[in-house]
Amino acid sequence: MDSTKNISSKEGASGPCLYLMPSTMSDGPVDHVIPAVNIEIAARVRHYIVENVRTARRFLRRCDPAAAIDEMAFSVLNRHTTAEEISMMLDPMADGHDMAVISEAGCPAIADPGADVVAIAQARGYRVVPLVGPSSIIMSLMGSGFNGQSFAFLGYLPIDARERTERLKEMERRIKVERQTQIFIETPYRNNRLIAELVKALPGRVLLCVASDITGPAQSIVTRPLSWWAKARYNYDKIPTIFLLYS
Amino acid sequence: MDSTKNISSKEGASGPCLYLMPSTMSDGPVDHVIPAVNIEIAARVRHYIVENVRTARRFLRRCDPAAAIDEMAFSVLNRHTTAEEISMMLDPMADGHDMAVISEAGCPAIADPGADVVAIAQARGYRVVPLVGPSSIIMSLMGSGFNGQSFAFLGYLPIDARERTERLKEMERRIKVERQTQIFIETPYRNNRLIAELVKALPGRVLLCVASDITGPAQSIVTRPLSWWAKARYNYDKIPTIFLLYS
Repeated sequence: MDSTKNISSKEGASGPCLYLMPSTMSDGPVDHVIPAVNIEIAARVRHYIVENVRTARRFLRRCDPAAAIDEMAFSVLNRHTTAEEISMMLDPMADGHDMAVISEAGCPAIADPGADVVAIAQARGYRVVPLVGPSSIIMSLMGSGFNGQSFAFLGYLPIDARERTERLKEMERRIKVERQTQIFIETPYRNNRLIAELVKALPGRVLLCVASDITGPAQSIVTRPLSWWAKARYNYDKIPTIFLLYS
Repeated sequence: MDSTKNISSKEGASGPCLYLMPSTMSDGPVDHVIPAVNIEIAARVRHYIVENVRTARRFLRRCDPAAAIDEMAFSVLNRHTTAEEISMMLDPMADGHDMAVISEAGCPAIADPGADVVAIAQARGYRVVPLVGPSSIIMSLMGSGFNGQSFAFLGYLPIDARERTERLKEMERRIKVERQTQIFIETPYRNNRLIAELVKALPGRVLLCVASDITGPAQSIVTRPLSWWAKARYNYDKIPTIFLLYS
């Protein structure tokens, strides 16, 4: 069963690990969304790659109020980090140290710059170990009732009006022809406008799921036809929200 | 912040919940992949919708060896369940009882029949609450180093040779034109054959990530160009594996 034996990895299965450590997406108790083993790993790892040092320290302290934060080294990886800087971030692994990537919220490397450092770790043959944690994409898909055997996450819709209309038409086509659930996000202060736009652009029978404040105190996941959303009262202004379309 | 107030849900935010309860994907300790709160919820819920009663009971007992399994009611939801049967499964919610969906492995309603019962719960206006747990799709994507801002999960590739070739060409196009990571699975005894087929069908510079035994003892996530896979020795025969393509 040990397929790793057949992989000519530079470090082998006993080398250092790059852990991909999900963080919380809201202020509730950490053990509502993070398995106990993650907290044990966080207590061991001394070298972190994080999107924001302050948030990462706060998360680690919430995991374990006695965490030895002062003994931890943090490299910052955000959209301003250069390729050369990213390349040097994994140097502690060459000395045999485990490292962990923590993103601003949720799963690292999904909708944030973490993927770049994972790609380098892979190219160098290091072991990469994702840990379990909250993913608003998967949780909203689970709660939507939509097809989970075929789905696409598209990130943000284009801002340019013509490209945006084209994207919506293409999403409609993939729902119909490929039976593929379409998942996307919007800048939170434009959430209400986006729903109004979807109501205008797509047929009333298409189903829209609005999943907001996932894992938070106001969590709500509501699937209804666009014809229902056209008449509904709602306010998702500034609440982190994820949108799913299907029919 | 409470957007649920604006939603005219039949039951309101205080009504019964349909929990979507991920299960383990391997035999390791439950707390490696399941947050503590899931176990607390499992200790309370008495009405379950499961893919397989024996596996679900075993999972609940692993969560809590003292679980009151004999007081729990289980409805079976698999591909043979009729729409009428599914429709009746949520009857305990009408009496105010919380329910939970547990699939065979990993997150319910993602690549299993659970989505049908969630769709009914949504149509009836019930609260649907996804819980955190292992998803081989998200974990393999995190570990691949591929684009997590745009990705698609396609399930199984078509079996028909012509349709299969067309699907591979379309995946290649979406990687190139849309920069969309393509994720798919294969019947485990065909894993090795699939890798050989990808090597033949696609350019050598395309990157293939093979993520196998996710959360299990032989977990390995390896991203390399197809030109590397063409010469590599590997054996993923009968190991649950997920495949990702990008370039």
